[in-house]
Parts: sequence; structure tokens; C-alpha cells
Amino acid sequence: MLKQNDVNICTPVTGQTMEDVTEEVRSIVPKNPDLFEWRADYFRNLADTEHVLETLETIGEVKKDIPLLFTIRDQKEGGDQTDIDQSHKVELIERVAANSHVSLLDFELRQPEEDVERVKEAASSNNKQLILSFHDFDSTPSSEEMHAILREAEKKGADYAKLAVTPENKQDVLRLLTVTEGAKRSLGIPVITMAMGGLGTVTRMFAWYFGSVITYAVGKHASAPGQIPIEELDKTIAQLRKYQ
Amino acid sequence: MLKQNDVNICTPVTGQTMEDVTEEVRSIVPKNPDLFEWRADYFRNLADTEHVLETLETIGEVKKDIPLLFTIRDQKEGGDQTDIDQSHKVELIERVAANSHVSLLDFELRQPEEDVERVKEAASSNNKQLILSFHDFDSTPSSEEMHAILREAEKKGADYAKLAVTPENKQDVLRLLTVTEGAKRSLGIPVITMAMGGLGTVTRMFAWYFGSVITYAVGKHASAPGQIPIEELDKTIAQLRKYQ
Repeated sequence: MLKQNDVNICTPVTGQTMEDVTEEVRSIVPKNPDLFEWRADYFRNLADTEHVLETLETIGEVKKDIPLLFTIRDQKEGGDQTDIDQSHKVELIERVAANSHVSLLDFELRQPEEDVERVKEAASSNNKQLILSFHDFDSTPSSEEMHAILREAEKKGADYAKLAVTPENKQDVLRLLTVTEGAKRSLGIPVITMAMGGLGTVTRMFAWYFGSVITYAVGKHASAPGQIPIEELDKTIAQLRKYQ
Repeated sequence: MLKQNDVNICTPVTGQTMEDVTEEVRSIVPKNPDLFEWRADYFRNLADTEHVLETLETIGEVKKDIPLLFTIRDQKEGGDQTDIDQSHKVELIERVAANSHVSLLDFELRQPEEDVERVKEAASSNNKQLILSFHDFDSTPSSEEMHAILREAEKKGADYAKLAVTPENKQDVLRLLTVTEGAKRSLGIPVITMAMGGLGTVTRMFAWYFGSVITYAVGKHASAPGQIPIEELDKTIAQLRKYQ
């Protein structure tokens, strides 16, 4: 579904209503992202499961054949506030996993073990791929901890291990890149990594060169600090790729 | 002379004759490099000191106010073959150092100690800046060795310490960047670093972000493997700078 051993540019979709979300996808399609991420935690009507599924259908009508990643980012890891509780959320993800327009799910590694298990099961039984993710909005863990987080995601059955950290300095940025390169060689699954914020923007441009298979770029609205517009990222990637 | 705490784009000039060299400089000026490097080891008439000095005058007439770095790269460190011996070379550098069009000299750290001393003296007495450089065209030394090389350049009186290595893999590329970032914090002089070849092209685009103050780009001809055209480098640097 995603390009393997290569970078995939993912644009987040952050609309609050069915109309917003659909219009956002429609307007980004001409920019040719490799992947859409519907950040459904921004959606104002998550409690109405049928409405969410209906929105997936309208997304499906406009997204062409671009794969769709579905994410309800937890507030503890940078998500918006939602109107549903944990058990409702997991049930919703199970319903969404069965939808044909959805190709991938992202769920936080630090969610309760039984919920990770259920989401994992929902993904596999529907032939969807699973990203298990970890976000640190305060700091950059030690290199050993970062490696351990990525390994844990693999152990728990993820198809992709995602790690987003907040650098305090350029050493942190280089540690994140070094962990990425090491994980690419030592893990059995691909990794998705980034250093957030302005200090880390360089990783959104180049972490792919060291092994990160997805980079998030702004289609219409950013979903995390340090993201840059897809048009600019396209150019930077093309420039390095030419000499690779 | 050079921008401090910022990247300077340097385009090498590799012509074999006075006409070639002058034409090369003239054609690159509109591309606005921050610095020219006359790689005089490519020049076919180094034995004729007056002709070299005359060529500096013709360069001076066309280079506008772009600073000029003068280098006779040693064959052992990637230079072209020249028609002069070591003592003639050092004498020539002493004459060149006195020329008003020249702002900086580059000399190899691994040259005989007394020659480094003479070139250092020629630079200081003429108010020119000195780059002491180290090139490894086979491999990337250990991180400790790379730090030691940069420190040695500082100890020997360089104004800039230059380190160019050849990576065998992406770990080497990241080690070079990590050494650069560390040296920026620990050294008393600025560093100039790069990983050569296609694997290292990423460093020509981004090592500046981690502390390297010069990146070499192709104006007309490359002088080392992995260099990219100045027009492309300009764009990549501008993109990251915007979000820095």
C-alpha cells in the first residue's frame, strides 16, 4: 500500500465537519500526497458512529486511490479533545477498520494493553496495516529509550513503529536521526520518525534518507509543530534523491 | 569576510589557463556565491609565479566583491598533479598571500610542520584567514579521530578547521554530522565539514544546520565528489532557513 524502502508523504486532514473534511481531501488530492491521515480527533461528531462512517464514504469518493490512515490521536499525545470515552473510541476504531476506504490505523503504543490488542486484532482481521505510535511533546528520550520504544511497537505486532519527539537542541535532532538509522538496520518493521518543532523541521525533510518511511507535510493545515507545506517538501526530497 | 554563524556557499574554480579561470569566475558571479575557491592545482602554469599573480589580477577584475580562497590542493588529498615541488609551492603561497584579491588560504594540516608554520605566518602577516584542512578519500575516521583532527587545526592556528571524509554508509554520514555539531560547541574556531560522494550529498545540503560554515557547490565544474549545483543548494538552504 505504502511505498517500501522509500519515503511516503502524508498530509493530515483536520476538518471538524463532514463538509470540511471532504473539502480538505478534495483540495489536497491535486498535490499528490502518498497518504492521507484523517486526524479524526479534530472531528466534532465522533460520538455518532454512523456519521463517521458516512464521512469515510464521502472521503472515499474524492480521495482517488490515495491510501487513507485513520487516527484518533489521544489528547495525552498531542490530539484534540473528543466527545467520546475510551471504550467508545476503541469500538469506533473497530468499525472504521472494517471500512474499505481505510488502509491503515494509527494507535498509541501507550494505550491500555487490552485496547492495543483489540486495535491490532481489528487491523489484522480486516487486512489493514497498523502504526503503533509514541509522541513526546516535552523532550527527546535517551537513545536507549527511543530504541526500546520502537522495538516495543514491533513486539506488540505493529506494521510500522512511529516515534515523534521534541528536541531541546541539535544534539537531540541528531540522536533521533541516529536512532532512526540504527532501527532501520535492526528492526524487522519500518520506522516513522520525526523531531517536532522548528528545531526538528530538518528531520521532516531528511529523516527519510536515514530510514523513516513517512514524513508528514501540510496539505491545508498542520497537525503538529514543524510541519512544512507538501509542495516544498516535494522539492527538497527530489533534490536529494537526484544525487542519492 | 565570511558570514559568521551562518553558511557560506563556496564555488570552486578549476580552469587550467588564465582565460579559463577568468571566464569561469565571470560566469559564476551572477549565481552569487559567498566565496570563490581557486583550486590552483588544476592550473597548468603554476611554475610561472608572475603568471599566477597576473591571473589573480584578472580574477580580481571580474569577481566583484566576492571573497577569494586560494588553494593548491595536495595530490595526496584529492588535488590534481602540479608542475612545482613542495618548496616552490610554499613560496608561491607566500607570494599569493600578499595579493590583495585573496582573502583566505587553505593548506593541509598534514603538510610538514614547518610549511604549515610558514603558510600560517604568511596568512597572519597579510591579514588573510587560514583554513587548515584534512581530507580522507577512503573512509570516515572514528569520531574521536575526527574531533582530534579539528582540535589540531585550531591548535596550529587555523581560523577555520576543515574536515572532508568519505562515508561507507549512512552511519558514517551521521557521525560526521554529530562531530560537526559537537565541534561547533567545543572548538574556539568555526568548522567546515562534509561527507563526500553521493552518500554524503545530504551533508552538503544540511551540515550547515549543524555548524559547518562553508558548503562547496558546483558553479561550473565540481572539484570533489558529491557536490551539487549552487542553484539547487540555494533553494534547499532557503527552504530549511525559513522554518529554522
